[in-house]
Amino acid sequence: MNGAESLVHTLLGSGVETCFANPGTSEMHFVAALDRVPGMHCVLGLFEGVVTGAADGYGRMAGKPAATLLHCGPGLANGLSNLHNARRAQVPIVNCVGDQATYHRPLDAPLTADAEGWARGVSGWVRTSRRAAEVGADAAVAVQAARAGHGQIATLILPSDTCWDEGGQVAAALPVAPAPAVAPFAVEAAARVLRSGEPTILLLGNAALLAGPVADAFRIAAATGARVSAGMFNSRIARGRGRHAIGRVPYPVEAALAYLAGVKHAILVGATAPVGFFAYPGKPSTLLPADAQVHVLARPDQDAAAALAALAEALAAPPVAAPMHEAAAPATGAISPEAFARSLSALLPEQAIVADESITFGRSLFPSTHGAAPHDWLQVMGGSIGGGMPLATGAALGAPGRRVVNLEADGSAMYTIQALWTQAREKLDVTTVVLANRKYAILLHELANVGANPGRVALDMLDIGRPDLDFVHLARAMGVEAARAETMEEFNDLFAAANRRPGPFLIELATG
Amino acid sequence: MNGAESLVHTLLGSGVETCFANPGTSEMHFVAALDRVPGMHCVLGLFEGVVTGAADGYGRMAGKPAATLLHCGPGLANGLSNLHNARRAQVPIVNCVGDQATYHRPLDAPLTADAEGWARGVSGWVRTSRRAAEVGADAAVAVQAARAGHGQIATLILPSDTCWDEGGQVAAALPVAPAPAVAPFAVEAAARVLRSGEPTILLLGNAALLAGPVADAFRIAAATGARVSAGMFNSRIARGRGRHAIGRVPYPVEAALAYLAGVKHAILVGATAPVGFFAYPGKPSTLLPADAQVHVLARPDQDAAAALAALAEALAAPPVAAPMHEAAAPATGAISPEAFARSLSALLPEQAIVADESITFGRSLFPSTHGAAPHDWLQVMGGSIGGGMPLATGAALGAPGRRVVNLEADGSAMYTIQALWTQAREKLDVTTVVLANRKYAILLHELANVGANPGRVALDMLDIGRPDLDFVHLARAMGVEAARAETMEEFNDLFAAANRRPGPFLIELATG
Repeated sequence: MNGAESLVHTLLGSGVETCFANPGTSEMHFVAALDRVPGMHCVLGLFEGVVTGAADGYGRMAGKPAATLLHCGPGLANGLSNLHNARRAQVPIVNCVGDQATYHRPLDAPLTADAEGWARGVSGWVRTSRRAAEVGADAAVAVQAARAGHGQIATLILPSDTCWDEGGQVAAALPVAPAPAVAPFAVEAAARVLRSGEPTILLLGNAALLAGPVADAFRIAAATGARVSAGMFNSRIARGRGRHAIGRVPYPVEAALAYLAGVKHAILVGATAPVGFFAYPGKPSTLLPADAQVHVLARPDQDAAAALAALAEALAAPPVAAPMHEAAAPATGAISPEAFARSLSALLPEQAIVADESITFGRSLFPSTHGAAPHDWLQVMGGSIGGGMPLATGAALGAPGRRVVNLEADGSAMYTIQALWTQAREKLDVTTVVLANRKYAILLHELANVGANPGRVALDMLDIGRPDLDFVHLARAMGVEAARAETMEEFNDLFAAANRRPGPFLIELATG
Repeated sequence: MNGAESLVHTLLGSGVETCFANPGTSEMHFVAALDRVPGMHCVLGLFEGVVTGAADGYGRMAGKPAATLLHCGPGLANGLSNLHNARRAQVPIVNCVGDQATYHRPLDAPLTADAEGWARGVSGWVRTSRRAAEVGADAAVAVQAARAGHGQIATLILPSDTCWDEGGQVAAALPVAPAPAVAPFAVEAAARVLRSGEPTILLLGNAALLAGPVADAFRIAAATGARVSAGMFNSRIARGRGRHAIGRVPYPVEAALAYLAGVKHAILVGATAPVGFFAYPGKPSTLLPADAQVHVLARPDQDAAAALAALAEALAAPPVAAPMHEAAAPATGAISPEAFARSLSALLPEQAIVADESITFGRSLFPSTHGAAPHDWLQVMGGSIGGGMPLATGAALGAPGRRVVNLEADGSAMYTIQALWTQAREKLDVTTVVLANRKYAILLHELANVGANPGRVALDMLDIGRPDLDFVHLARAMGVEAARAETMEEFNDLFAAANRRPGPFLIELATG
């Protein structure tokens, strides 16, 4: 058995059954091993950003890591930005990267690069295998590392000779350490704050945003008068009809300050204290009032769900039913953010997964869709643009049988548009809605935010409508059926039809 | 004057007049400064790999650096792979990267990342500006660093407050250090080797491959019986009718070993000793015969052209005329690598720039096109796939008035296909020929090379024909006219017409 075969066996034995791949020469033995070891579902991406972004989406929905397979050096570099997003989302990924053979690397052939250096910024764990006999053991530790706590990226770098040499040894799955429990005093301290009656907000982060902990947070809120909110960007929020309507800290600084005004205590539950996404001249960087006290119930790496349950118990908070939202009728007429939100609310399929990279046009979508059918809402977590389409691709593979709805701004769509091809190839149930306003609209806002006064040259840098991008033909050229909607009626018909048919579909929504 | 304005003024004063950009919020003041300071040609890319790859192509043809403008953190990450290629090509680039404001960065907002760490692997020089008053001076040093020797990447990281704060000071251009001359003893030693009469090869690297030094190398060869060759991958080779036909070290290991068999002395002239692009089981990593001696006339950072001239002088080598190549007629009938090479030879426009990422189908193109009209041949230097289309984009901007012919394998094309949009936007004279065999053909060879025996799963990972990619519609969707050729006659007509018309055109050549 060679090293590559021991790798595949060990990954499978450790529960890693999906591999997103864009391999090159140095990874050919891994590819060959996939033939000889059945059981791994291999998904090809045409660009490494598709591979890593899909691993992010898969991990969020499957609750366990996928493996990646990236080409040495620059192949990893191309995948870094979506790994950055996945790191912020605390997603488990076993990030396998090829490398030059151990004895070839010192010769500095053209592709040779500092893979470990590049990987460190996104990885909780990095190791380069030294010989075939160690690959299996390294892979088992990589899976263990990826699954530690809520999840992190474990990068395993595999020189090509460690894959082709004989002597590979399959390693048994290692025990996985769950997210550590919070200390009882943290629960007691939070309970004291909540009993004080002072204005308090519970800020929920990644692991606290599944249906159970959100319900517990709303029990606590009902019993104490506290508010509940998610952070600005979140890995996965369970929401929709029958669930509590949890808000998010808004992105614009002024709106965030208003949202948090008057708060005297912020209790962090798997979240971090809210800060501006960017700094702006003359605006504050931190968003809580200056006199607010910050209390940590659960750090992001801790078991926030159990902490919330314990806190609800400590407060003897009775269960509360979620408010019933009226089911909306789809909007008609002209396209607007409000009309789109209404149609989305009305037409979102049961148990849909929304992959949201809707940026400017989409800012009102989240607050206006609490009444949609029950669904999960995923955001690009690290702010690295272009994560949305790969995220949707991976989410579809991580949760088969559920429809993925990808809300995608046109500028963002063009970063990793190749994801559509993988959706076609894998026949994934993804409906992509490209919000085509033909500009980097967010940057027009941001120019004003930083106090700049744009002229012709600046405006030109934010205009992607010269030439126009035709997303319908881009999609078709990669095997995805597509159509353009210029009215809400057209959108409603296309969206309903797209969600009923198997496989991917793209709707270009003319928003500008 | 704010820091951003001092940056733009300083860049312009230091001779940097083109900026490839994909800005975000943290770069908005740079964008605003472009309005207030006239003279910078700003070229927008829809993805950072377009930006950095275009800066590579520009630098190779213009012989001076372009600036980039990349968004903080992950924006840099997306540009790393083509910076890796540019580093290997010794191309000067002033790589400007935004960052969080100095006081905002410690708050670890979602986009915060280790930009310096990521930049180091590709940069000869990295600096983060600390305050507005220093941005101008930092920029002047960055340009100086980028232009040192033959060129390197100088990364200047600009926290957003260093751009918006007042107090910016324009810095004067700094003197540029040329590539250092070689010591006289290196010339004498090389002359002694060449006079010995033993089998000798002159291996020419980047800076030695312009028309003058190549002619000098052929003078030396004619006077001494030595051979002349370029390395395996090269930044820019001057060639075509009226110029000497210089070969390259072949990519396949067996072919390279045969090419270099019998060599007793290798004289490196701005090149490195040839090594395999990858290691393969049971095959050597170094390509020169074991008993060959390696002599260094000029290191890659030295003035190889002057060294060759001095060596020719020392040997009193008389000038030699380049052999006359027959002008070929375009090929007709079925599409094959040989037929394509013949048509390319016949139809390549005068002073064309060939950006070659043709991979498997293109392997015979270089040796078969010595007789084409005079042209420059550029290769993707670092082996990072997808550099070709951005390279062609930047080359067109770096050498206005010359036609760029981008030979692009289909698999490679899909990494940074967004470059087409920039070509349309800037109305660049680029003819792209996509060689569409619908597979990662090189990897099929490489699977065999590493001794792997592919089965269904492995073959599936190398097949990009499910679904088929339609490059004609991809191009049109981004504003580039396009057509498909299924015979050589169709290709000949399309290619000749494309090269006559202004602006970009894409031909999908059905090769598989």
